[in-house]
Amino acid sequence: MTHSKQSVYEPLTESGAVALAARLGLFPEGTPFICQEIGDGNLNLVFHVFDPQTKKGVIIKQALPYAKVVGESWPLTLKRAVIESNALRTFADYVPQYVPKVYYSDESLAITVMEDLSHLQIARKGFIAGKTYPLLSQHIGEFIAKTLFYTSDFGMNQQQKKQLQQNFINPELCKITEDLVFTDPFFDHETNNFEEELRRDVEALWNDDALHLEVAKLKRKFLTEADALIHGDLHTGSIFASDTETKVIDPEFAFYGPFGFDIGQFFANLLLNALSRSEHEPLLAHIEKTWNVFTHTFAALWEQHNVEPYAKTEGLLQDVRQQTLIDAVGFAGCEIIRRTIGLAHVADLDGIEDQPTRIHAKQLALQLGRQLILHRQTIHEVQQIRSLFFQTFAATH
Amino acid sequence: MTHSKQSVYEPLTESGAVALAARLGLFPEGTPFICQEIGDGNLNLVFHVFDPQTKKGVIIKQALPYAKVVGESWPLTLKRAVIESNALRTFADYVPQYVPKVYYSDESLAITVMEDLSHLQIARKGFIAGKTYPLLSQHIGEFIAKTLFYTSDFGMNQQQKKQLQQNFINPELCKITEDLVFTDPFFDHETNNFEEELRRDVEALWNDDALHLEVAKLKRKFLTEADALIHGDLHTGSIFASDTETKVIDPEFAFYGPFGFDIGQFFANLLLNALSRSEHEPLLAHIEKTWNVFTHTFAALWEQHNVEPYAKTEGLLQDVRQQTLIDAVGFAGCEIIRRTIGLAHVADLDGIEDQPTRIHAKQLALQLGRQLILHRQTIHEVQQIRSLFFQTFAATH
Repeated sequence: MTHSKQSVYEPLTESGAVALAARLGLFPEGTPFICQEIGDGNLNLVFHVFDPQTKKGVIIKQALPYAKVVGESWPLTLKRAVIESNALRTFADYVPQYVPKVYYSDESLAITVMEDLSHLQIARKGFIAGKTYPLLSQHIGEFIAKTLFYTSDFGMNQQQKKQLQQNFINPELCKITEDLVFTDPFFDHETNNFEEELRRDVEALWNDDALHLEVAKLKRKFLTEADALIHGDLHTGSIFASDTETKVIDPEFAFYGPFGFDIGQFFANLLLNALSRSEHEPLLAHIEKTWNVFTHTFAALWEQHNVEPYAKTEGLLQDVRQQTLIDAVGFAGCEIIRRTIGLAHVADLDGIEDQPTRIHAKQLALQLGRQLILHRQTIHEVQQIRSLFFQTFAATH
Repeated sequence: MTHSKQSVYEPLTESGAVALAARLGLFPEGTPFICQEIGDGNLNLVFHVFDPQTKKGVIIKQALPYAKVVGESWPLTLKRAVIESNALRTFADYVPQYVPKVYYSDESLAITVMEDLSHLQIARKGFIAGKTYPLLSQHIGEFIAKTLFYTSDFGMNQQQKKQLQQNFINPELCKITEDLVFTDPFFDHETNNFEEELRRDVEALWNDDALHLEVAKLKRKFLTEADALIHGDLHTGSIFASDTETKVIDPEFAFYGPFGFDIGQFFANLLLNALSRSEHEPLLAHIEKTWNVFTHTFAALWEQHNVEPYAKTEGLLQDVRQQTLIDAVGFAGCEIIRRTIGLAHVADLDGIEDQPTRIHAKQLALQLGRQLILHRQTIHEVQQIRSLFFQTFAATH
C-alpha cells in the first residue's frame, strides 16, 4: 500500500492545480482561473488558484518529499500532508472560525485543498511592520483552550482519545522538533547557525549544566506526555491575521503532546518580536491576554463539558493550569534560544539591520530564554513573564 | 478486515487444541497428547497439552470475547491476545529468561501457544502458603529495569519507540485499569465490593478530598505519560515462580505508560501479602531489593546504552529515578485500596479465615494505601515504605 502510494505521487504543475480546482465543483463551469505558485519551495508547493473577476479562489498545498534546508535536501515523509489535513479537520470540529476550511485532500498525492486566506497577512510579517492585531490573543487563547480541552482526557471519551492519538503518531516531524528545538542549539552541533559575535554567549549555553538538566526535562515532557492534540508549531508564522480575523495554518507537526507546548511557542514568538522593537507593550499584553483567555475558556469548558469523574475534585484544575504555565514558560525559553542560534531563525531578529542592535537583541534573547527555562517553576502568574522580560533588559544595560 | 476476523473466530475445543499442538511440529509425530483445560474460564481458555511420558508440553491460550465478572458478562476485545503475544515477544528481546517463550500466535483466533510453565507456581499462591522465593526480587527488578529502559526514549531509537507505542495503543484494557484501579473504589460505585464492617472506612475514602486530588493526579499520569512499554498488570498473580526461576505472564494490559506503574503494582501486592501475615520481613525485603536491583540495572543500562543526547547530563538520571519512586508509591497505594474494596480482590486478604483479623487487615490496607498516596512526595528512599508500613500498624494498635 505504501509502495503504490509512492508510485502515484508526482509534483503538481500549475495546469494540474487549475484542473484540480475545476474538478472539485467549487466554481462555476468555465471559470477562467489564474494560478500562482506562492510557496517558498522549501517544503511544499502552494498554489493560489482564483477567479480574477470575483477574486474567489482556493489554496492547493502539496507536500514535497524532501526539505530544502541550508542548501541541502533531506527526505521528509509525505504523510505530513495527511497529518495536516486531519489536524485541520479535527480542529474545525471545535474552532471552525480559526482554521482554514479543508475542501479536499488526497493522501497519495499529499495534497490538501483549502480556503483561500490571501486577504489576511502572516502575523509575523504584520508584527514586524508594526501592526498590533488587537483580537489576536482573544482568538489564539480560545483556539488553544478549545483544541486542547476537547482532545484531552477531560473533554473527550478517553478511549476515543487513544484512537485519535494513534492516528496522530508523527515520528518524523516530532524528530525535527526534538533535534532543532530541544537538542542541537544546546550543543556544538552542525545545524546551529549564529553570528560570530554571539560565540561567547552560545558557548556559555553549551557549557551550562544547570540549563542542560532543565532542557532535558522539558524534552522528556515533549517525548512522553500525551495530554492533547497539539498544533506542534504554533509560531507567528503559522498564523494568518487581520484586525478582525485569525486563522491558524500548517499543523503538519500535530501530535499528542503536552498542554504547554503550543502556548509556549506562541509566547516565545511574541517575545522574539518584542525583543526586536522599542515598543514592547502590545506584545506583552498579547501574552497576558492569551493566557487569561486560555484559562477562562478552559475553566468554563472544564466546568460544563468535563468527562473525567474527578473533574469536580477541588484543586485539580488549578494543578493542571499551574503545570501548564510552568511548562509553557520552559518551552518558550527553548524556542527563543533555538530561533536565535539554531537552524531556523526568525525575521523579527535577523531583520534588524543595525548590526550592534541586532547582536544585542540576540544576546538578550539568549538570556531571556535561559531565564525562562531556569526559573519556570517560580512562575505562578503570567505577569511574571513581563517581569522576567524587563529584568533581562535591566541586567544588561 | 475486522469483520472477517470476527467471523473466523470460534472457541477451541480440547481436540482442537491437541490438533494445533500436533500441527506446530514441536513434538514427534504420533505423540499421544493429553489435554487439560486449566483456565479459570473468566477471560480466557487455557489448555495444557502435554506428552504424558516425557511430561513435555505447551500452553495454548485463547482469549474469549467476553469477561465473566461477578456473574455478569461484558464484551471484551479479542485484540488483547495480539497485545499479549506481541508484548511477550518484545519483552523476550530484552529479558528472554523472565517470560514464557511464544511458539505461535493466531490473531484471528486470538490464540497464543507458549512455553509450559507448569513446573512453577503462581507467586501469590506460594506467598500465601508461606514461601519466600529468594530470587524473585532480583529477577523482577531486572525484568522491570530492562523492559522499561529498552522500550523508553533512553534505550530505543525515539522514532522507533513512537511506532511501537502506536502498536500498543490498548484502549479497552486501559479502561479497565482507569475504572477499577483509579476511579470506582474512590466513589460509591456499583462495581465496589467490600464487607459491611468496612463501610465507615470506605465512606471516609469516598469523602476524602485531599485523597481524591492525589488519585486524580496519578490517574492523569496513567492516562497521559508514555514513558515505556509497561506490563500493565504486574501483580503477584501474573508471576510464575520457584526458588530458582521467575516468569512474568499475562501482559494483555501492556501499553506505553509511566515508568512507575509496574513497580507500584508489584510493591502493592507484596504489601498486601505482608498485611496478611505476621512475618512481614521477607515481603518488605523483596520491595527493597526489587527497587535496588531496578535502580542499579537501570543506571548501568543508562550509562552504557543511552541513545538520548542528554544522557550524560548531571542530575537527569536522579530526576527520573526520584519521580519513578514517587509515582510507584502512589500507584501502589491505589492498587492496595482497590484490591481491598474494589471489584477484584486478592486471596491474600480475602483468604484470612478469622473475621476480625481479616477486617483489621483490610482496615490497615486502606490506611496504608491512603498514606502511600498522600505522602509519596516525601519518599526519597525505598526504606521509607517500610517505615510507613510499620507506622500504619502502630497508629491502629
